[in-house]
Amino acid sequence: MTMDAAILAPDSLGPTVCVGEILVEIMATTQGPGFLGPLDLVGPFPSGAPAIFIDQCARLGASAGIIGAVGDDDFGRLNQGRMKQDGVDSSAILVDAGYPTGTAFVRYQDDGSRHFVYNIAQSAAARIRWTDSVSALIRRAGHLHVMGTVLAMPAAWDIIERAMTIIKARGGSMSLDPNLRRELVANDQMEARFAQLVDAADLLLPSGDELEYAAGTAGEHAALGSLFERGVGEIVLKRGSSGASFFARDGRRIDELPFDVTQVDPTGAGDCFGGAYVASRRLGMSAALALSYANAAGARNVTFRGPMEGAGTRAELDDFIHNTSRRS
Amino acid sequence: MTMDAAILAPDSLGPTVCVGEILVEIMATTQGPGFLGPLDLVGPFPSGAPAIFIDQCARLGASAGIIGAVGDDDFGRLNQGRMKQDGVDSSAILVDAGYPTGTAFVRYQDDGSRHFVYNIAQSAAARIRWTDSVSALIRRAGHLHVMGTVLAMPAAWDIIERAMTIIKARGGSMSLDPNLRRELVANDQMEARFAQLVDAADLLLPSGDELEYAAGTAGEHAALGSLFERGVGEIVLKRGSSGASFFARDGRRIDELPFDVTQVDPTGAGDCFGGAYVASRRLGMSAALALSYANAAGARNVTFRGPMEGAGTRAELDDFIHNTSRRS
Repeated sequence: MTMDAAILAPDSLGPTVCVGEILVEIMATTQGPGFLGPLDLVGPFPSGAPAIFIDQCARLGASAGIIGAVGDDDFGRLNQGRMKQDGVDSSAILVDAGYPTGTAFVRYQDDGSRHFVYNIAQSAAARIRWTDSVSALIRRAGHLHVMGTVLAMPAAWDIIERAMTIIKARGGSMSLDPNLRRELVANDQMEARFAQLVDAADLLLPSGDELEYAAGTAGEHAALGSLFERGVGEIVLKRGSSGASFFARDGRRIDELPFDVTQVDPTGAGDCFGGAYVASRRLGMSAALALSYANAAGARNVTFRGPMEGAGTRAELDDFIHNTSRRS
Repeated sequence: MTMDAAILAPDSLGPTVCVGEILVEIMATTQGPGFLGPLDLVGPFPSGAPAIFIDQCARLGASAGIIGAVGDDDFGRLNQGRMKQDGVDSSAILVDAGYPTGTAFVRYQDDGSRHFVYNIAQSAAARIRWTDSVSALIRRAGHLHVMGTVLAMPAAWDIIERAMTIIKARGGSMSLDPNLRRELVANDQMEARFAQLVDAADLLLPSGDELEYAAGTAGEHAALGSLFERGVGEIVLKRGSSGASFFARDGRRIDELPFDVTQVDPTGAGDCFGGAYVASRRLGMSAALALSYANAAGARNVTFRGPMEGAGTRAELDDFIHNTSRRS
């Protein structure tokens, strides 16, 4: 077993920054096909994959900041308040008074899949842009985490590209959660941008078949080889309720068994997993310990209703790990 | 007492048409200051003042159509379905796939006032425009009802102006519910447009101090005189839980005592009142009978949760009138 090399820049270099949609989520409390009549709902919950990721990052004790936009409304204030409360640098959250905060209504259908009614494209979330506050945050950042979902948000790309250049130039690192909605990677430009993100990533956090998709190669082994050849430093495969696996370029592999939890709401699990992993690694923990915290963060979050309500502090995750049995 | 002249064009000339926002409403089930954390909610309910008005109009048995726009989402389909189910001509509801259906989150505060989080300006609702379907509906319409709220929607004005000209030219009539949010009538152009609507109105349906505002004159008596001088045919003053009064140009006055109901949700009461009044008058009923149905429609609607859930058929309103005592 070789040394557990530092693939990500240390927390001391500056905060992990994530770019993208800040939303509120409103959940139906009953299962069914959609929102075609009055239902019992609960919300608004702070949401948006980048917001969930960065909130978990901060709650674990790492420095963290977010670049996004909200409306001048209660839903925006809810998100700003949560970010601040949990220690996320929210100086680069733009308040766009001309647009509402983005919303996602979600209802679980009888087959377990989710039905959404979104307003993102015509919300403040899609109005992010390079501002002095964004520039200031990027210039002190130590790591950039990219959610693949931002490829669907044209305004985000300019920020991502500039941020990658600036952060890498100052010795920072980058991670990518493909987080693909396959139908969104629908054109050559998006494919090219996605490939550019994979090439730049020090850490890749795919779920399921995103590993093979990111590699453009069938078969787990071949996909891993191809990605390491393209310069990825380490890969953590999220297997949902089947646990997770760490793969290093030198052939090391670590597997984590899943926790035995009762799932209340799976939304946000992958984002919490990623936030905890990146935070742990940047705080100097071993891959094994980071993987354990990540696995716990994802599992703990599904036991809470609301996409980021279960994001845990280090003490909460320690408790969770201590008190929760594993599936074998 | 003079003859109860027909101020509005008869139903046989063609449908009453209303132009404006079609929304869904999501209500908090608890009172409090806003939407700054997860709450129990219920929704989506079909909503939007013009939609509530026209739905009540149709349920009372009058011909009715609406000009509005929704997104290509569940919330739009909910509204389209409700309109069709209740007999509203929905041929001129535009589906704008690029924008979400408008939303209004409402929470009653401890003092009884309402706190809203709206998305209208950046929703499909604001994207209404003159289309062949709009033209076809207007060309067969017998009456135009205008909600003052459309003044806040720049795209609506073009439709309103063209509709007024076409409908009046074919012998149709017009009614106006000032329905003011005073802060929206903020500039000279809006003031001028509002005055133009008052001048064109055969029937005015103000609430409370909207009467004096519409007249630009202090004092009920002076305001009524000024408005009749400007050509208004009849005025029905909505006094909320204090009942309603009818005023004719010839000095006749009819007062309706309020119904003694337990208020569940006041939203939509004024719109149901207006829809029932216009429908009744256009169906040939006397002002006294129309006022009675209008008063009943408003009162019945507040006993239902949801802005148009209590819109009653003629039989339902007859039952309500028969079975509900009055406050004196």
